[in-house]
Amino acid sequence: MNTKYPETLENLIDSFGKLPGVGRKTAERYALYVFMHMKDEDITDFSNALLSLHTDIHICESCGNISEGNICKICSDSSRNHRQVLVVESIKDLITLEKVNEYKGIYHVLNGSISFSKGISIDDLNIDSLMEKVKGGEVDEIILATNATLEGETTAKYLKELLKSYDVKVTRIAHGLPVGGDISYLDELTLLKAFEGRREY
Amino acid sequence: MNTKYPETLENLIDSFGKLPGVGRKTAERYALYVFMHMKDEDITDFSNALLSLHTDIHICESCGNISEGNICKICSDSSRNHRQVLVVESIKDLITLEKVNEYKGIYHVLNGSISFSKGISIDDLNIDSLMEKVKGGEVDEIILATNATLEGETTAKYLKELLKSYDVKVTRIAHGLPVGGDISYLDELTLLKAFEGRREY
Repeated sequence: MNTKYPETLENLIDSFGKLPGVGRKTAERYALYVFMHMKDEDITDFSNALLSLHTDIHICESCGNISEGNICKICSDSSRNHRQVLVVESIKDLITLEKVNEYKGIYHVLNGSISFSKGISIDDLNIDSLMEKVKGGEVDEIILATNATLEGETTAKYLKELLKSYDVKVTRIAHGLPVGGDISYLDELTLLKAFEGRREY
Repeated sequence: MNTKYPETLENLIDSFGKLPGVGRKTAERYALYVFMHMKDEDITDFSNALLSLHTDIHICESCGNISEGNICKICSDSSRNHRQVLVVESIKDLITLEKVNEYKGIYHVLNGSISFSKGISIDDLNIDSLMEKVKGGEVDEIILATNATLEGETTAKYLKELLKSYDVKVTRIAHGLPVGGDISYLDELTLLKAFEGRREY
């Protein structure tokens, strides 16, 4: 009986199977596709991109964004308003918002949202460096741009609670964001409206 | 404006984007997941599995199956009946059929099926080594186990036409295979019935 693929291919299937939402069938499809149809050059590039991931890029110590150095391009940009901080759940949301090319403050990436079902509390989120900036009086406005989901709204409420004893204006991105929606799937115009229509929170 | 990810991550997104059915959004999700959540060790394994793919495994010269040597385990197995050849569209189908653990002949992988819409003709399929075996009088029965799709049925008809001038019995896997169905998604019992119920073609 030969019900398995050769070991090398099984290893690759296992690796693809670790990706989010990828089951055995999809992992097999990906691995066989790479083996049958991808050029050697493309496979080498793929392999190298994986290897250089953790050596070439890092998490910005200041905001949690993805970065080539210790501090990301946005946090290093002195032309931006460092007293205005837009808080997002993920790097993907940051990139999506940045595409609007309208916002000139800085960001803060929570790297998640509070979820009782998944057991993720406020302590599991990246908030220390944000709170330090607030405590140090470095911030005028915090714009909460967490998703319009249960988790995103809960996170926004917790953050508002945490921030209320400090002298900082807290706003919530609002208009145009459909309830249950995911920021990274929004079009730029809707995002722009959501940004302009932000209100005191 | 910082609408792109760092180059290393963009490279990885590009690589994931080359996989079948993976668009930009999914590729981003995979790449960010690898960066944020995968352990260094798992990334190294992933990278190595990709690199060793084309050095460690090959296509069997005899049947088109995936193989660690020039000839696959099934074709090298003298306890199997080499005069009975089961023809499948893909390696995935071969692996699925082999799981039934009932068939004791050998296989032949076409690596595709005839598709007028995609411009794939019989000449694009892996049939040379099969025809050589038939011409050499090495085969008693050819079981056509292409999918029950338009492409699979067309391919079966073309093969039957090609084989009719030779002294070889041509059968078609049949009962239990739902019309429009894909062999690699079938359960083992249905496959067993389909195999037992094969008829002259």
